Amino acid sequence: MVETSSINTTCVYQTCYQVDFPCVIVHGGAWNIPQNRTQHTLQAVQTAAKRGLEKLLDKSQGNAAIEAVECAVRCLEDDGLFNAGFGSCLCANGSVEMDALIMDGSHLRCGSVACVSRVRNPISLAKRVMEETPHCLVVGQGAEELAEELNIPMVESSLELVSEVARKEWESMDNNYPGAVDTLFLQNISHETVGAVAVDSLGNIACATSTGGITGKRKGRVGDSPLIGCGGYSDSRWGGVSVTGHGESIMKVTLSRRIIFGLESGEEPIVAVENSLKEMYERVGGKGGAILLTRQGKAVIGFTTSRMAWALASRRVTQSGIDGD
Amino acid sequence: MVETSSINTTCVYQTCYQVDFPCVIVHGGAWNIPQNRTQHTLQAVQTAAKRGLEKLLDKSQGNAAIEAVECAVRCLEDDGLFNAGFGSCLCANGSVEMDALIMDGSHLRCGSVACVSRVRNPISLAKRVMEETPHCLVVGQGAEELAEELNIPMVESSLELVSEVARKEWESMDNNYPGAVDTLFLQNISHETVGAVAVDSLGNIACATSTGGITGKRKGRVGDSPLIGCGGYSDSRWGGVSVTGHGESIMKVTLSRRIIFGLESGEEPIVAVENSLKEMYERVGGKGGAILLTRQGKAVIGFTTSRMAWALASRRVTQSGIDGD
Repeated sequence: MVETSSINTTCVYQTCYQVDFPCVIVHGGAWNIPQNRTQHTLQAVQTAAKRGLEKLLDKSQGNAAIEAVECAVRCLEDDGLFNAGFGSCLCANGSVEMDALIMDGSHLRCGSVACVSRVRNPISLAKRVMEETPHCLVVGQGAEELAEELNIPMVESSLELVSEVARKEWESMDNNYPGAVDTLFLQNISHETVGAVAVDSLGNIACATSTGGITGKRKGRVGDSPLIGCGGYSDSRWGGVSVTGHGESIMKVTLSRRIIFGLESGEEPIVAVENSLKEMYERVGGKGGAILLTRQGKAVIGFTTSRMAWALASRRVTQSGIDGD
Repeated sequence: MVETSSINTTCVYQTCYQVDFPCVIVHGGAWNIPQNRTQHTLQAVQTAAKRGLEKLLDKSQGNAAIEAVECAVRCLEDDGLFNAGFGSCLCANGSVEMDALIMDGSHLRCGSVACVSRVRNPISLAKRVMEETPHCLVVGQGAEELAEELNIPMVESSLELVSEVARKEWESMDNNYPGAVDTLFLQNISHETVGAVAVDSLGNIACATSTGGITGKRKGRVGDSPLIGCGGYSDSRWGGVSVTGHGESIMKVTLSRRIIFGLESGEEPIVAVENSLKEMYERVGGKGGAILLTRQGKAVIGFTTSRMAWALASRRVTQSGIDGD
């Protein structure tokens, strides 16, 4: 069963599937993805979803939902096309600062990191924060030191993580961040945050989000991605969400938590995503996208940008898409 | 009019006042405040509320609610008794890392900083992030560099911010953080986060929260205080909140945003605070406290710890308290 809605007034493009468990959805960022990157982007999110599903179907996985979202996001961090891990963009000062969040909805456990520069897979460091520290969020040099203690693989120099495309984008910015945000959302020169949501066969729901930030941002700026309730949220009683888009706007409306609160207060899943994205646009002018998996097996993909790459994988349903129209 | 409820099963101590605008509420942390600190703590929150009210009544203040919460929190950061600004506690490695958040509910504008070590008043740096950058959250060295650019007053060494009490607490911790959290919440050796919420005569609602973290925490750990929706949230359509307590628990339930969502979904203010604190305790075992001011003029003070110092000031009503029983 598939429902699709496109509300022209606020341009929320949405798709909703009824899925069987286990299931995983992946996104590769909501923005005006240029035509020459469409094929690679779609293939990458399809592969990430497939790998995530393999984890969900592997009976040796203890907490399969968490393993699945970590695996899917690592695929995209390693790809080089996305703004996360390899492919990260550059701050105003030419440095790299990556953020990531993972959340286990069965006990509301959460781990996240912000402003890490040399960690190959920030999502895996976030998972270790959740599993091996009493904290939820560790940032900057403290997070890098934790990575070293835990023997997390690191690059010698953060510049190894930067692609040629990301470097050119930075050079074209002329250190003009407010202008840069407009440019990124209106023109064809950005790449974006990645994320995943998974439900395992026990009904545990997990989410994960990873980003390299926005080109030209100030050193130390943290966006929505690593912040619980902003870049992602998961509560196995209701559902899990990962979002992408203009970080400051997502933070102001706590977009992920807003979507889950919508479910709690009786909104249908597709309405919760639609209303949340509309509210963000109407109140603070921000655009973005969200993927949602609910406890009742509804999978919703919604975005207010012109495109968002996504892929869904379960035993019986495999779907993917990129266009809003 | 005053209603008071004390639900013994989950120990939510609550008070609700109907107030006139403008109005400000201040808190000085929710924990087992020892008897020999009661008087100083109460006087300090009363003074902070009084100063906040002066800003609200001063017609020269453009955005009076924001000026009032900044002023009230600065008073407590400067006091030396509270775990914010002067009085901050020490990380496991002996360093100081302070966090602060301010939010303007009229446009959901927000500014926050985390892991700053030498800024005398982190709340004022958070306000400048909101007013003078396109970002919402700036952390670590990037935030210190921003403070220098903006000529924000800084101390030469972060150790100037540490009180004798804070140093002794750190020395007694033996670098055992998980144990430390239990100790802090069960025994008499902690100080706590401060916060304020104000409504000005135009109905604009602002909130502010500031903390030095938890003694013995890992370098780079960020708790709830600087995170939008966790340590505070303000939406002038509904109300403003500042919270305090075990940071990781507050983050997992996005406590401040949960309280405002309660109002949005039709809960009475006192019920929104009660249900949110109960949910936090029941789902993740965390204790804490909250102050709430609503658009309809309800002021709610609630906590699940044995004490929370608070003070309320408006033209006609002046109240304060510390005990749960």
